[in-house]
Amino acid sequence: MATDTVDNKKNIFDRLIGPPLETAAAPHQSIGKVPALAVFASDALSSVAYATEEILVILAMAGSMYFGLSIPIAISIAVLLVILTISYRQTIFAYPSGGGAYIVARDNLGELAALTAGSALMTDYILTVAVSISSGVAQIVSAFPALSHVKIEIALALIMVMTIINLRGVKESSTAFAIPTYFFLGTAFLMLGTGLWRWATGDLGIVTGVDVAQNLTQSITVFLILRAFSSGCTALTGVEAISNGISAFKEPKAKNAAATMTAMSAILMTMFIGITLLAHQVQAMPSETETVISQIARTVFGSGTMYIVMVVATTTILIMAANTSFADFPRLAALQAADGFLPRQLTYRGSRLVFSWGIVGLAALASLLVVIFNASVSALIPLYAVGVFLSFTISQAGMVVRWHKVSKLKEGEEIESRGSTLVYDKQWRWRQAINIVGATATAIVTVIFAVTKFSQGAWFILLLIPTLIWAFFGTHRHYQRVANQLSLGELDIKPHNSPLQTILLVDNVHAGTLRLVNFARSLGNPWKAVHVAVDPERTAELLKKWNERIGFGELVLLESPYRSITEPLRDYIHQLQDENPDAFIHLLAGQLAMPSFWEQALHRNTNLLIDLVLRDMDRVVVTSVPYQIGLRDEYARRLTLEGTTLKEEALETETDATETETSE
Amino acid sequence: MATDTVDNKKNIFDRLIGPPLETAAAPHQSIGKVPALAVFASDALSSVAYATEEILVILAMAGSMYFGLSIPIAISIAVLLVILTISYRQTIFAYPSGGGAYIVARDNLGELAALTAGSALMTDYILTVAVSISSGVAQIVSAFPALSHVKIEIALALIMVMTIINLRGVKESSTAFAIPTYFFLGTAFLMLGTGLWRWATGDLGIVTGVDVAQNLTQSITVFLILRAFSSGCTALTGVEAISNGISAFKEPKAKNAAATMTAMSAILMTMFIGITLLAHQVQAMPSETETVISQIARTVFGSGTMYIVMVVATTTILIMAANTSFADFPRLAALQAADGFLPRQLTYRGSRLVFSWGIVGLAALASLLVVIFNASVSALIPLYAVGVFLSFTISQAGMVVRWHKVSKLKEGEEIESRGSTLVYDKQWRWRQAINIVGATATAIVTVIFAVTKFSQGAWFILLLIPTLIWAFFGTHRHYQRVANQLSLGELDIKPHNSPLQTILLVDNVHAGTLRLVNFARSLGNPWKAVHVAVDPERTAELLKKWNERIGFGELVLLESPYRSITEPLRDYIHQLQDENPDAFIHLLAGQLAMPSFWEQALHRNTNLLIDLVLRDMDRVVVTSVPYQIGLRDEYARRLTLEGTTLKEEALETETDATETETSE
Repeated sequence: MATDTVDNKKNIFDRLIGPPLETAAAPHQSIGKVPALAVFASDALSSVAYATEEILVILAMAGSMYFGLSIPIAISIAVLLVILTISYRQTIFAYPSGGGAYIVARDNLGELAALTAGSALMTDYILTVAVSISSGVAQIVSAFPALSHVKIEIALALIMVMTIINLRGVKESSTAFAIPTYFFLGTAFLMLGTGLWRWATGDLGIVTGVDVAQNLTQSITVFLILRAFSSGCTALTGVEAISNGISAFKEPKAKNAAATMTAMSAILMTMFIGITLLAHQVQAMPSETETVISQIARTVFGSGTMYIVMVVATTTILIMAANTSFADFPRLAALQAADGFLPRQLTYRGSRLVFSWGIVGLAALASLLVVIFNASVSALIPLYAVGVFLSFTISQAGMVVRWHKVSKLKEGEEIESRGSTLVYDKQWRWRQAINIVGATATAIVTVIFAVTKFSQGAWFILLLIPTLIWAFFGTHRHYQRVANQLSLGELDIKPHNSPLQTILLVDNVHAGTLRLVNFARSLGNPWKAVHVAVDPERTAELLKKWNERIGFGELVLLESPYRSITEPLRDYIHQLQDENPDAFIHLLAGQLAMPSFWEQALHRNTNLLIDLVLRDMDRVVVTSVPYQIGLRDEYARRLTLEGTTLKEEALETETDATETETSE
Repeated sequence: MATDTVDNKKNIFDRLIGPPLETAAAPHQSIGKVPALAVFASDALSSVAYATEEILVILAMAGSMYFGLSIPIAISIAVLLVILTISYRQTIFAYPSGGGAYIVARDNLGELAALTAGSALMTDYILTVAVSISSGVAQIVSAFPALSHVKIEIALALIMVMTIINLRGVKESSTAFAIPTYFFLGTAFLMLGTGLWRWATGDLGIVTGVDVAQNLTQSITVFLILRAFSSGCTALTGVEAISNGISAFKEPKAKNAAATMTAMSAILMTMFIGITLLAHQVQAMPSETETVISQIARTVFGSGTMYIVMVVATTTILIMAANTSFADFPRLAALQAADGFLPRQLTYRGSRLVFSWGIVGLAALASLLVVIFNASVSALIPLYAVGVFLSFTISQAGMVVRWHKVSKLKEGEEIESRGSTLVYDKQWRWRQAINIVGATATAIVTVIFAVTKFSQGAWFILLLIPTLIWAFFGTHRHYQRVANQLSLGELDIKPHNSPLQTILLVDNVHAGTLRLVNFARSLGNPWKAVHVAVDPERTAELLKKWNERIGFGELVLLESPYRSITEPLRDYIHQLQDENPDAFIHLLAGQLAMPSFWEQALHRNTNLLIDLVLRDMDRVVVTSVPYQIGLRDEYARRLTLEGTTLKEEALETETDATETETSE
């Protein structure tokens, strides 16, 4: 029974995602710097697990003698990171209520740019989940090859767990994710420390026992180096996370967010450069069979416990990285929905105050990607990171424009513009310079990504983004149109009442029909009963019963040669409307309400059909008069379960004896 | 817009499955003997494509020197076929209106036996589709290996095509399937003729260039021979098809059906024995790479055109075999549904007078099997044929009982019993004997099937059948219970009218709300407006607008700390019910009706939710008052499309100017 299922649902939810939170509880759902680092940085930090390797993979095409180039490349990426960080700190302070690429672009570059950034980011958030989960699973599988044939199932299960954790709300999830993130940081730095120490003391060996598939297909060119650089840039995916999530921080939000951002970048830079140096020192080789990070760990720690610990930590952080998207995607979706570019439902906070629709939507789309690409990282990677760098570029271009506005201000002047405040800043020139440099650098990286990865799958993203933008504008137009049609304008209209024509749709005469007639009489308006005659025998039987049982009220028969219920009904209603154009047509239909979905499915549920088919007819109103089957049993159950009184829902006493029901 | 979509649907259907047929057209949908053979026999006939091979596969386990045994085995299977045919001819005459195992069992052995036969047959019909389509696809793929990675897609596409053809109705499908069936018969007999001639004239060579994977795992035992026999019995799957489909034949139905049955059996027997003989003569070997039938064809015709023709014909017939199930499954399902053991919907004839639900259901389940088993025949075969032989046994056991009843009759006496007539027959003894022999033989085969194939998957069927039976009885109990609760019994109750409490659910004040209030006033009963206060700002705005725009009627606010719409509403209704137990609670809610599904999905559709959550509340009636968005555009469209008059559906003139709609 519906209640029943509703109650069960609630119980399950309670167990899974915790008891509902009152709207008033909202402010308490913000988090401090330390857990925030875990929630927002795991994506960025986890990328060191593959960034260095990706550089080497490209360089390997020209030969391992060029691996030395990985160090200058890593350093230049670090420089780019510094630029990004400074730039994003500026954004954070400029947009203390949350300054994702979408908002910055919307304020300074207009809707199109904003939606481009939005779609680019959303695409990448979905990919982050798919990629991180897949590579996490890949690690598990390489440890337990037996699991390889349930790879996809594991990935989907992980996504589901992550969904539930996030439906519990960001606070819970931060505690749930802090441990593994800091566990990874600990082990990673221990590895770096040990490695550098053993290097200094000269007893750091080199990698042994890795089978390398050498294929020298390229000669060393600027293009190849740039390509290696762009591949390495995957290390920077996720650094924007914090600037999107400022609103989740404890007060002072901007200050805490900026501090967390700096800390994250420092950690990321140290790890990335450190790992690249060590990789070069131990002569790690990109290989099909063993990841570079694992080669380093094995060389530094030996194949003992610490090696296993490092592998476990890496696997975990990769899986956790997906969580960043679970924090950001719903927030971004809600932003765009609030502006009417995505379904409004995305702005509703669920029973736990999180954007449930966004979380579920992300999980669904990521799962779809995992299934389509068979949880293969190598298949997903080419689609990845293009979006992020596109959004970097747009967001910083936006800041450039913003500094231009600031330059127009007089000393000490302040201007409010859409939520953010333009404050006079005499240093605007060099701040703008930073953003120009950043925008240019990321723009180049974006182009390199698009070019070098186009054929491997980047083309799909370059098609998808415009498609999404088109859909966003379509949605917006729709909401605009609806708003116009619903608006009452300036004139003050008092509702008037129009004539009414009441029709009872009758299929058979049984207790449910009595309930229907009974209700019709209670309404107190004149009515006609209507029957769609599909089967002559049943019609005859109906007429007989009608006269016996009901004994009053006109019964109109509608012929239906093609056995359709709705078509004759539509025609009849059109006819009534012609006779009396400004009347409401009020259709009453009985509905048998079953205790369970399955039992409901055993019946014809004509109502749903009618609802769907008549919904488009102007001034036609449908009332469904339910008659509950199995209510008695339900009562017995409830009485024992909840101790509610029978009085609560009075029972018809009309039904007893036996007589088979031919309709429905 | 709904009409719109409905119209489109209709157009698509028209194109796909032809214009709707009047109920009166039903009788014309019967078919003559020649097309009937194509419709009902393709399953049985196609099985010769693999039956012989399956015998050899088993014998091969003991060594090719025992292949000679295939001939006596084939002959004994032929004998079984003769017994089955005679027995089924008796059934056809005993049940001229259609004598499937289900009906025979129901009449003579009772419900349990009938449902066992029913579930066994249904399972096998689904498997027939899955197996035939899969093996057909396997042939295609072995010809074009490039297609191997879209195997499943091809299979699903074929099932879809078959579904559409069958939704057109049996008459059309018979013409659609006659050609390939007779094409196969022609080529097959040409092959047999040529083969036997070349054998007689002594220039029939032996198979060359087949790589055989010999694995001698078994010694020759009675058990192994029986197992080979049972594998060969797959040749007999589908012979019951005609006895189920009698009602589809031209008058005199029984006579025509019996004649078709005999013809089919004769053809089947000839082909099966012929192919087995040739297989032995040309020393065909079961092989992974080439089917036995193709080996024979290649040896008889050489690798020229005729060989290709034979392969194509075989592929086609295998695919067509699936069609038998499309003719039979829906008919059987409808029978059981009429007895209340399956959802009643299965008894409705669609716009083309076919049992649309059954056809679609079969297609869906078969597709599921294809996906689960990756369209692999070898994976499906072990599940196959158990059901058919179980139903053979039950049906003939039923006939045995029937002859016993007949034996009780006096000379010339006749008794009506559930649609079939018991006629005195002095030959009842030996007729009964035939059925006893048949029942025993098929029972043994069933047991052998179950035992020899248990571990390969037969266990699943042996679990599934009881599960289905359980579900059938559950369904039956449900319909019984509903009937009891709906029955009015003997006492003649005149409906009375009870007090009424009308509530308007208000979320915002816009043109749709005016429509709602307007309708409420037209009803002429006193009402209260109710608003579930989720967001304080919106509530304040609502109150302001309500007073400005509506200016009358009480507006009750329901607090909702957990942002749920339905819970506070339920509580409020319970409260009203407590105050006035025997009143109807009449809830009116506005609904924005969008032109398309996608646009509808962009809105909250609270109505659906309310409907679901309040459906279980006794004497609570929900009316949804639609307000059509985009009706104007729709009009423009319709006017041009259908030239209907604007008068047909009058327009509200309340909506103009602009003001954004925050709710919905």
